[in-house]
Amino acid sequence: MSLPRIAIDAMGGDEGVRVMIEGAALARRRHDRFKFLLVGDETQIRAALADHPGMSGASEILHCEDVVGGDEKPSRALRRAKTTSMGLTVDAVKRGEAGAAVSAGNTGALMAMSKLALRTMPGLDRPALAALLPTLTDDDVIMLDLGANRECDPHNLVQFAIMGAAYSRIVTGRERPRVRLLNIGTEETKGTEDIQAAADRLRAAEGLAMDFEGYVEADKINRGECDVVVCDGFSGNIALKAIEGAARFVTDLLRSAFSSSLRSKIGFLVSRPATELLKHHLDPNNHNGAVFLGLNGVVVKSHGSANAKGVANAVEVAARLLEDDITNRIAKDLSAIDTMSLGAK
Amino acid sequence: MSLPRIAIDAMGGDEGVRVMIEGAALARRRHDRFKFLLVGDETQIRAALADHPGMSGASEILHCEDVVGGDEKPSRALRRAKTTSMGLTVDAVKRGEAGAAVSAGNTGALMAMSKLALRTMPGLDRPALAALLPTLTDDDVIMLDLGANRECDPHNLVQFAIMGAAYSRIVTGRERPRVRLLNIGTEETKGTEDIQAAADRLRAAEGLAMDFEGYVEADKINRGECDVVVCDGFSGNIALKAIEGAARFVTDLLRSAFSSSLRSKIGFLVSRPATELLKHHLDPNNHNGAVFLGLNGVVVKSHGSANAKGVANAVEVAARLLEDDITNRIAKDLSAIDTMSLGAK
Repeated sequence: MSLPRIAIDAMGGDEGVRVMIEGAALARRRHDRFKFLLVGDETQIRAALADHPGMSGASEILHCEDVVGGDEKPSRALRRAKTTSMGLTVDAVKRGEAGAAVSAGNTGALMAMSKLALRTMPGLDRPALAALLPTLTDDDVIMLDLGANRECDPHNLVQFAIMGAAYSRIVTGRERPRVRLLNIGTEETKGTEDIQAAADRLRAAEGLAMDFEGYVEADKINRGECDVVVCDGFSGNIALKAIEGAARFVTDLLRSAFSSSLRSKIGFLVSRPATELLKHHLDPNNHNGAVFLGLNGVVVKSHGSANAKGVANAVEVAARLLEDDITNRIAKDLSAIDTMSLGAK
Repeated sequence: MSLPRIAIDAMGGDEGVRVMIEGAALARRRHDRFKFLLVGDETQIRAALADHPGMSGASEILHCEDVVGGDEKPSRALRRAKTTSMGLTVDAVKRGEAGAAVSAGNTGALMAMSKLALRTMPGLDRPALAALLPTLTDDDVIMLDLGANRECDPHNLVQFAIMGAAYSRIVTGRERPRVRLLNIGTEETKGTEDIQAAADRLRAAEGLAMDFEGYVEADKINRGECDVVVCDGFSGNIALKAIEGAARFVTDLLRSAFSSSLRSKIGFLVSRPATELLKHHLDPNNHNGAVFLGLNGVVVKSHGSANAKGVANAVEVAARLLEDDITNRIAKDLSAIDTMSLGAK
């Protein structure tokens, strides 16, 4: 089966067209079956393509001039869904001209446009933004929602758990991913009523393709003891950014410690293979590509400041979800739960 | 002026009586004016004191046999406020037998007992748990609430800002601490309605002894760009634990990277002064001692797993807040804001 092509918003992100095209080219060097629809300013895209001869035969350009601003309000961007590179990228999935969309633009606008164009899946109340985070083990952990929904009811959280488990099955190969709800303690009485109600439902449900294992506190997210961490978008955004910030804080301290004396500089040089390994493991580009789960189509958000390696990673995430048919997997799991009357609000 | 003595719950915490006493002794070696009321099992306390000859003359023992369990429900613990070491430690502050209380026991129970014994300050709706976190600069940042209040309204958040600023003035010496609200974005339209309403009030208020500078995202908490981070207890607990977990995650990765080959082991030995510096800066014991702000008395929560150095730090936090009269400072700032009618709900 040939892979449907991937639509790329060539204009989104802080790093510009060149990085988006370089990222796509890098992904294609690793997977030569990848094909692209590149959306944006044709002159700029052609100039960027000139550096990547292998790309021309694999790419079509969809020209447009309008671009969604990084700080633009989603409601305002939405009015230009038919003229902006972001809007047309998502629309290509709707029209069947691409199988998945990748953009590094404004997250709120991308969510709004994706919901409008692709619609939320039948039986699902709200889509969620999910990302992979590194752990101490070889497997990544999936966390969702990361900011698509500021507040969530128990029903939303249960549906997020189902979507996260479907995603985790694809990336970890585990038949029954270990799912936990993010909370401020592990005892049953901890946290908000919504979280407790979601836990009750997940505990009571039978036939779910996951092992629900209760709560996880934010300091255990990266331990690799669970595969899916479920939370509302506000908490998830706080936790994700706190982790990113703390990791950067520690590596900044490490850098200044290593440059504090000649002796430590020499030590740094000697131990460079070790610190490079650390850098590789922590580089956000290696985990780039957050996914909007729960839409009728695959949309991947690349980080605004991702480099070419990061963009390539986001493209690969999109291709993998497309090949493994995440949308139908989630639809199947959601319908299974509906028949258990667990879905009732 | 002699410092009122500090009551110590000798039985709380995972590490037992010896560590609590060793911590108090360590603090006293640095500040020989410290005096203690040690609450708990007299035999165990006497045995622990035997290792610290300097302590006997500076300590009185208040014997009791009952101890609050680490996982005990606060409501259950509260019924034994008059018989447990935690309850009697807090009660000593109420009775004027000590100026401040330090416990490493169950946080929820300590909060409940402290509220019952010391009462919330006049004009304040809810106390909050505040802690100091390290930054890239020489100053620590204060974050509150860290879990005392699961949900908070705008009025609570404004009062937390005032209490946090009073605390920050003591530890940073800054007359106008820079205060921000934790949020999932920095634009005015981001976050929940409660956060936006709190921001509106803090922006509109005149005469506050702080510079309110809007929102901070969780990845910037440790940058040292603000002095006080204000949030509800749920978000604060998530952010704090996510930071702790990520810092541990990175140092665990670093340790395994450094032990991955002979070369990196040698590099580690050569650069040990640098990594020791990092370890020192990140050691949670150096930042131990969370404070319940907003009570009629000083209560400090030492981390359950803190070592003697950590306990000493918590004791020093208690002494400092006592000497600098945090309770009256907060009362003064709260009354100033009341006259501005900002305090109206």
